[in-house]
Amino acid sequence: MTIIHQTSSRKLDHIRICSQDEVEQGDPGFQGVSLIHNALPECDMGKIDTGVRFLGHLFGSPLFIAAMTGGHPETTVINEQLARAAERFNLGMGVGSQRAALENPDLEGTFGVVREMAPSAFLCANIGVVQLRDHGIEWADRAVEMIRGDALAVHLNFLQEAIQPEGDHDARGCMAALASLCEEASYPVIVKETGSGIAGETARRIAGAGAAAIDTGGRGGTSWAAIEAIRADESSRDQDRHLVSLGEEFLSWGIPTVTSLCEVVPAGLPVIATGGVRTGIDMAKAVALGADLAGMALPLLNPALKGEESLSNTIERLLHQLKVTMFLTGSPDIAALKRTRVIISGTNGALGVH
Amino acid sequence: MTIIHQTSSRKLDHIRICSQDEVEQGDPGFQGVSLIHNALPECDMGKIDTGVRFLGHLFGSPLFIAAMTGGHPETTVINEQLARAAERFNLGMGVGSQRAALENPDLEGTFGVVREMAPSAFLCANIGVVQLRDHGIEWADRAVEMIRGDALAVHLNFLQEAIQPEGDHDARGCMAALASLCEEASYPVIVKETGSGIAGETARRIAGAGAAAIDTGGRGGTSWAAIEAIRADESSRDQDRHLVSLGEEFLSWGIPTVTSLCEVVPAGLPVIATGGVRTGIDMAKAVALGADLAGMALPLLNPALKGEESLSNTIERLLHQLKVTMFLTGSPDIAALKRTRVIISGTNGALGVH
Amino acid sequence: MTIIHQTSSRKLDHIRICSQDEVEQGDPGFQGVSLIHNALPECDMGKIDTGVRFLGHLFGSPLFIAAMTGGHPETTVINEQLARAAERFNLGMGVGSQRAALENPDLEGTFGVVREMAPSAFLCANIGVVQLRDHGIEWADRAVEMIRGDALAVHLNFLQEAIQPEGDHDARGCMAALASLCEEASYPVIVKETGSGIAGETARRIAGAGAAAIDTGGRGGTSWAAIEAIRADESSRDQDRHLVSLGEEFLSWGIPTVTSLCEVVPAGLPVIATGGVRTGIDMAKAVALGADLAGMALPLLNPALKGEESLSNTIERLLHQLKVTMFLTGSPDIAALKRTRVIISGTNGALGVH
Amino acid sequence: MTIIHQTSSRKLDHIRICSQDEVEQGDPGFQGVSLIHNALPECDMGKIDTGVRFLGHLFGSPLFIAAMTGGHPETTVINEQLARAAERFNLGMGVGSQRAALENPDLEGTFGVVREMAPSAFLCANIGVVQLRDHGIEWADRAVEMIRGDALAVHLNFLQEAIQPEGDHDARGCMAALASLCEEASYPVIVKETGSGIAGETARRIAGAGAAAIDTGGRGGTSWAAIEAIRADESSRDQDRHLVSLGEEFLSWGIPTVTSLCEVVPAGLPVIATGGVRTGIDMAKAVALGADLAGMALPLLNPALKGEESLSNTIERLLHQLKVTMFLTGSPDIAALKRTRVIISGTNGALGVH
Ligand SMILES: Cc1cc2nc3c(=O)[nH]c(=O)nc-3n(C[C@H](O)[C@H](O)[C@H](O)COP(=O)(O)O)c2cc1C
Ligand SMILES: Cc1cc2nc3c(=O)[nH]c(=O)nc-3n(C[C@H](O)[C@H](O)[C@H](O)COP(=O)(O)O)c2cc1C
Ligand SMILES: Cc1cc2nc3c(=O)[nH]c(=O)nc-3n(C[C@H](O)[C@H](O)[C@H](O)COP(=O)(O)O)c2cc1C
Ligand SMILES: Cc1cc2nc3c(=O)[nH]c(=O)nc-3n(C[C@H](O)[C@H](O)[C@H](O)COP(=O)(O)O)c2cc1C
Repeated sequence: MTIIHQTSSRKLDHIRICSQDEVEQGDPGFQGVSLIHNALPECDMGKIDTGVRFLGHLFGSPLFIAAMTGGHPETTVINEQLARAAERFNLGMGVGSQRAALENPDLEGTFGVVREMAPSAFLCANIGVVQLRDHGIEWADRAVEMIRGDALAVHLNFLQEAIQPEGDHDARGCMAALASLCEEASYPVIVKETGSGIAGETARRIAGAGAAAIDTGGRGGTSWAAIEAIRADESSRDQDRHLVSLGEEFLSWGIPTVTSLCEVVPAGLPVIATGGVRTGIDMAKAVALGADLAGMALPLLNPALKGEESLSNTIERLLHQLKVTMFLTGSPDIAALKRTRVIISGTNGALGVH
Repeated sequence: MTIIHQTSSRKLDHIRICSQDEVEQGDPGFQGVSLIHNALPECDMGKIDTGVRFLGHLFGSPLFIAAMTGGHPETTVINEQLARAAERFNLGMGVGSQRAALENPDLEGTFGVVREMAPSAFLCANIGVVQLRDHGIEWADRAVEMIRGDALAVHLNFLQEAIQPEGDHDARGCMAALASLCEEASYPVIVKETGSGIAGETARRIAGAGAAAIDTGGRGGTSWAAIEAIRADESSRDQDRHLVSLGEEFLSWGIPTVTSLCEVVPAGLPVIATGGVRTGIDMAKAVALGADLAGMALPLLNPALKGEESLSNTIERLLHQLKVTMFLTGSPDIAALKRTRVIISGTNGALGVH
Repeated sequence: MTIIHQTSSRKLDHIRICSQDEVEQGDPGFQGVSLIHNALPECDMGKIDTGVRFLGHLFGSPLFIAAMTGGHPETTVINEQLARAAERFNLGMGVGSQRAALENPDLEGTFGVVREMAPSAFLCANIGVVQLRDHGIEWADRAVEMIRGDALAVHLNFLQEAIQPEGDHDARGCMAALASLCEEASYPVIVKETGSGIAGETARRIAGAGAAAIDTGGRGGTSWAAIEAIRADESSRDQDRHLVSLGEEFLSWGIPTVTSLCEVVPAGLPVIATGGVRTGIDMAKAVALGADLAGMALPLLNPALKGEESLSNTIERLLHQLKVTMFLTGSPDIAALKRTRVIISGTNGALGVH
Repeated sequence: MTIIHQTSSRKLDHIRICSQDEVEQGDPGFQGVSLIHNALPECDMGKIDTGVRFLGHLFGSPLFIAAMTGGHPETTVINEQLARAAERFNLGMGVGSQRAALENPDLEGTFGVVREMAPSAFLCANIGVVQLRDHGIEWADRAVEMIRGDALAVHLNFLQEAIQPEGDHDARGCMAALASLCEEASYPVIVKETGSGIAGETARRIAGAGAAAIDTGGRGGTSWAAIEAIRADESSRDQDRHLVSLGEEFLSWGIPTVTSLCEVVPAGLPVIATGGVRTGIDMAKAVALGADLAGMALPLLNPALKGEESLSNTIERLLHQLKVTMFLTGSPDIAALKRTRVIISGTNGALGVH
C-alpha cells in the first residue's frame, strides 16, 4: 500500500475541484485582440503547416499541454491519456509538480508513465521554485530523469503559496537558485507562472538568470485563488474559514495573459502563452502577438478523464480552429502567422490587475 | 423533371434558414458613426435627389439589392420580385451565385427571370472566386450572358468555404484568376465579400488586379458562420456535429462593415457598403463615409417572399428614411451627403475582429 | 363656440402625450460633465445670488421656463400657472408656438394670459421658422404683441416637420427670413431648436444672421420623434402606420444638449441650454459650460397641470439644488459659477448623434 | 440623568443608520488602479514590515481607524472597542466630532474613554470647521485635551451641512479660522473631508494655511447624502420630505477617493486616504498612490458593535490581505510599497463628480 502524503492528496483535491467547479476567473484579454480577415488568402487550408520549432524540438502545432498532474496513484491515468495525445499529435507536454514523487519515490510511476506513453514527444518536468531553492539541482535533475524529460519547468506560484494553509511564505533566494540551476543544468529551464502572469521587469530578471524560455501563466484561466478558496471552504478546520475570504479577495489578482505576453516578449526568450487560452483562434492570436507555443491545461482535463476519444476530439477541434484561422489570415505556416497584422484594443492597454 | 444538384438544394437551405432563423451576428458599426443635425437645412425634402452614378449607370438611389438567390426552381419567384422592385425604383440588383445554373443549364431561368422583369435596371451577375479560378472566363461570360448583366460580381467567401462540409479549402490562384478576368472581360468586375469584410491591404490588391468596384460585405449583418452552423445542426450526418461548434467559434470573425468601408475607400475604387445596413440612416452614413452604394440582402428577403406590396413598402420606407436623413443634414443630393461632416466614435477605431 | 383648427387640436395631443407617456429619449450628456467639489467653499449658502442678466433683463435665476403651450382653450390654464410662477420667481418664460392663434385670433387669449399673470416677467413669444418665412415679420410682430413679449423665439423643428403627417418639408428660404427679421425687428430674436440640437456651423450662421441669442434645444430630453410616433400610433388613418416606424427610426437623432452647448458657445451669442435639463445640478453644469440660462419644459408640465403648489414646490426644489451646487463649488454668484472648473469625460467628446 | 442634546441624539441616528442601511455610494476608484504582480518577489511574507511613520508617530500599519463616534452615552462602548483595537494593533484612531461634549461636558466620557483604553496609541481629536470658526482655538484645545490627543482633525462636511435640516449653511471665515488654529496650536492639525473629497486647489490652500496633514475623505464609501436622505425619510416633519429628494440628488456628488488622492498628494503634505477603502489590497493601492495611511470607518462599525473578537478578526483579515499584497508586489516594507509600479486606468483619469 502506498502511503499518500499531504502533497499527494492535495494534488487529488485540485484535480477534483478543477473537473467539477467553476475555477476560471477574469479575462485573459484575447477578446481585445483582433486578427485581420484576408478575403483572398491565396493559400490551401489542406496544406497549412502548423509545425513550430521550440527549444530545438519540432512540434506538430503550437498547442502545448500545460502542466497539470501526477503525484497521486489516481492521476496516473490522466497523465497516460495526455501523454498518448502528445505522442499522437506530436505536441509538447508538461507534467504537474513532481514534489510528491520527489518526497516519496513510490509515486514516481505516476509521472514516469508519460515517457512510456510518449517515447518521442517533448516532455517537460516540473518543480516549484521553492522546492528548487530548498533542495537544489539534485531535485531538479531527479525530476527530469523521472520522466526522461526534454526540459524542466520551474513554476512560480506565490499567490497560491500565500493563500494556502500549507503554503511556503518565504520567497527569498529563489532568484539565485534559478540562476545557479540555469548555469549548471544539462537541460533547458522554462520559468512559468501558474495564473498570475509575468511582468516585463520580472521577465528581464528571468532572462538575466539564464532561463531558456518563459511561460506567461497569466490571469484569465484557471485561478488558484478560486481553487484554494473552494478547498478551504470544504475544510472542517476552523482556521481555514479565513482562507476562503482571503482567496476570494485575490480572485482577480494577476496580470492577464495577453498583457503578460506583451510584457514578456520583448525580453527576447522563446515564450509559451498560457492562461485562459480556450480556442484555436486564441492560439493564433497568441502566436501573432509573439508567442511560440500556446498552452492549455483546464480545457484538456475533463476530456482526459473521459478517455482517449474525447481528448482526441478536443485536440482535433482546436487544431481545426487554428487551421481555419491561419487560412483566413492567409498564413500558410506559423512563421507567416507570426507576421500577421494584429490590433490590440484599448482595454488591454494597461495591466488589468485588480 | 429538373434534377436538383447539391449546389441547388443547398441554396434552398440558405433561403429557408435566412427567412426563419436568427442569422445576424455582431455589430456592423453604424451606431458608432454620427451624422450632424443641421437645424436650418435650407433644402426641400420633396425635391431631394437621391440619384447616384455608379459604373456609368444612373441609379434612383444608393440602395443596392445585394446578391441573394437563384439556382433552384423555388427561388425564381424571389428573383422575380426583387427584379420588379429594381425596375420600379431604378435600383441596382445582384443575383445570387450562378454556379448551380452553370453546372445545370436547366436552372438558367431561375436567374434569367431578373432581366425579363427588369429590362432597364442595372443587374449584376455573380460567381464565386473559386469557380472563376476553376472554370475561367468562360463561366464568367456565361454568367453575365445568362442575365444580360451590366456587371459581374465575383464573391469571396472563404469563411463559408472553410466551415462548410462541401467547402473548397484551396484559395490559391484566385488572385491571378481575378486579374486575368479583369483584363479580358468586356464588363466591369465587382469584387465582393459576403460577410467577413475586406481589409485595406486586400482592397489594394483587388484594385491592383484591375477590378471596377469593391463591395465590403462586412461583418455585422448576415453571418455565414451562423447559417452553416444551423445547417450542420440540422444534418443527421455524424461528421457534421463538429461543424456546428466550428461555425459557432467563428460567429464573430470578420471586419465590421464600417471598419471595412474606412479601410477600402482609400484604395480609390467605387465602393458598395454591404453587411448589416438596416435603415436609411445607415445608408446615409455609408455614403457619408465614402460609399457610392449601400447594399442590403437579408432585410429584403422576407418582404420579397411576402410579395410585391410588402417589398415595395419596405423599400419605400428605407428611401423615406434616407430622404429624411439627407434633409436633416442639409444634403439636397448625394454629392452633398458625401461631403457632410461625420464623426466616428472610439469603438470603431480598431478593427473589431474577435 | 370657438372653432378648433387642426394646429390647435394637435397642440392638445402633444400636451396629453407629454403628460402621460414616456417621451424622453437619449442622454443629454450632463452625467459626463463633472463639477469640482470645493471642501472649503468660503461662501454663505443663504446669501448666494442666483441672479443673472440676459438680453438686458435681470432674472432671479438661470432657470428658464421653456416654450410649451397655448393655442387651444384647454391650454390657457397651463400658461396661466407657468406665468404666475415666472412672475413669482422672476424667471424668464416662453410660450408655445403661436401659430394657432395667428391663424385664428379667437385663440389669442390662450397666449395673452401670460402677460396678465406675469406683468413684469421676461416673456418670449414663439413662432416656427417656416411660419416666419411664409408670413414674414407681420406674424412675428403680431406674436410678440399678443403677449407684449420681451423677445421672440423662432423655433427650428425640421425633424418634427419631416416625420409629421402635416409637416412642412421645405426648409428653403428660412435663413433669409431669419436674417431679415433680425434686421427689422424691434425686439431681440432668439433662435431655438426643439430637441435635435444646434451644431457649431449652424450657430455661426445664426449669429451671422443677427440673432440675439441661441437656445440649444438639444437631444436627451423631450423627443418629438417619440411624440409623433405615439401620435401616429394612435391614429386610425392607414398612411400613419408608416409614420410610427419613421418616428422610431429617428428616436436617437440629434446632437445631445451638452455637445450642442459646447459647439454653440464659441459662436459668441448668449445661450440658453435646453433639452433634458432635469436638476439644479444640471443647471449649474450648463452655466459652468457657458450657458446663460438653462431651460426646462417637460419637468414643469405635470406640476403646472396639478396646480400652483405643485409647480412652486418643483421650482423651489430645483433652485435649492442649484444653490447647494453653487455653495459646494464655492460660487457665491452666477459669474463665479461660470468660472468654475468643469471636467468633460470622454463619451461626450464626439457628437453622439446616432 | 444626562440631558441628551440634539447634536447628541443625531449622532445616535447616524450610528444606527450606518449599521443597518445601505449608506455607501459610488465608486472610490480602487478598481481602476492596478498593482503589478511580481512573480519572483524575493521577500519573506512572514517578515514583512507594515510599520509606517506619520506625524512623528510609528504605526503598526497604515490602517487608520477613521473618525466615527462619541457624544452619546450609548456610543461609549463603540469608542472603547475601537480604542482597544487601536492599542492592540498599534493603529492610529480618530474619534467622532466632539461638538456634543463641547456643548455638554457630561458627555466628555464618551470620548475620553479612548485614551483610557489606548494609553499609547496615536489618537486624533475631532471638531467641525464651523465649530472651530465659531468657538475658536478654545474648543479645539478642549477637544484635544478631552482625549489627551496626539493631533486634531478638523472636518469639512459642507455637503452634509447643506442638506441637513439643522445644517450650518455659512462657510465663510473657515479658511481664516483654520489658518490661525494651525499657527497657534501646540498639536498637529489634520484637515479631513467626510465623503466628498478634496480637490488639488483646495489641498494647496490647506497646505498654505499650515495644516500638518490632509485626509481625502473621498466619495465612494459612506455617503452623508445617503445618510441624511434616510434620516429625513424617517422624520415625521413635513418640511423634511423635501430633504429626502435633496439628499438623493447629491448621492453621487463629490470627488472619488482615488482621484482626490491623486489631486492631494502633490500638495506635499502627509496624506490619509479615506472613503471606500475596503480591503488590504485597497490599502496597498492607496499607499502606492502616495498615501501615508489608509482610513476606514464603516467597515469597522458593525464589528465594533459585535465586540472585541469580531473587530480583531476584521482587522487581522485586513492586515493579512495587506501583507499578501505587499508580498506579491515584492515589497518587504511600506517604503518599497510606495515605490511600486501602479497603473491607473482611463476611467479615473477625470474627476468623476456627477
Ligand atoms: C488541475 C491543474 C493542476 C495544475 N498543476 C500545476 C502544477 O503542478 N505545476 C504547474 O506548473 N502548473 C500547474 N497548473 C497550471 C497550468 O499549467 C496552467 O499554467 C494554468 O492552469 C493556466 O492554464 P489554463 O487556464 O489553460 O488552465 C495546473 C493547472 C490545473 C488546471
Ligand atoms: C439568403 C442569402 C443568400 C446569399 N447568397 C449570396 C450569393 O449567392 N452570392 C453572394 O455574393 N452573396 C450572397 N449573399 C450575401 C449578400 O449579398 C450580402 O453580402 C450579405 O448578406 C450581407 O448583407 P446583409 O447583412 O444585408 O444580408 C447572400 C445573402 C443572403 C441573406
Ligand atoms: C408639451 C411640449 C410642447 C412644446 N411646444 C413647443 C413649441 O410650441 N415651441 C417650441 O419652440 N418648443 C416647444 N417645445 C420644446 C421645448 O421648448 C424644449 O425645447 C424641449 O422640450 C426640450 O426641453 P425638455 O427636455 O426640458 O422638455 C415643447 C415641449 C413640450 C414638452
Ligand atoms: C457612523 C459614522 C460617523 C462618522 N462621524 C464622523 C465625525 O463625527 N467626524 C468626522 O470627521 N468624520 C466622521 N465620519 C466620516 C469618516 O471619518 C470617514 O471619513 C468616512 O466615513 C469615509 O470612510 P468609510 O467609507 O470607510 O466609511 C463618520 C463616518 C461614519 C460611518
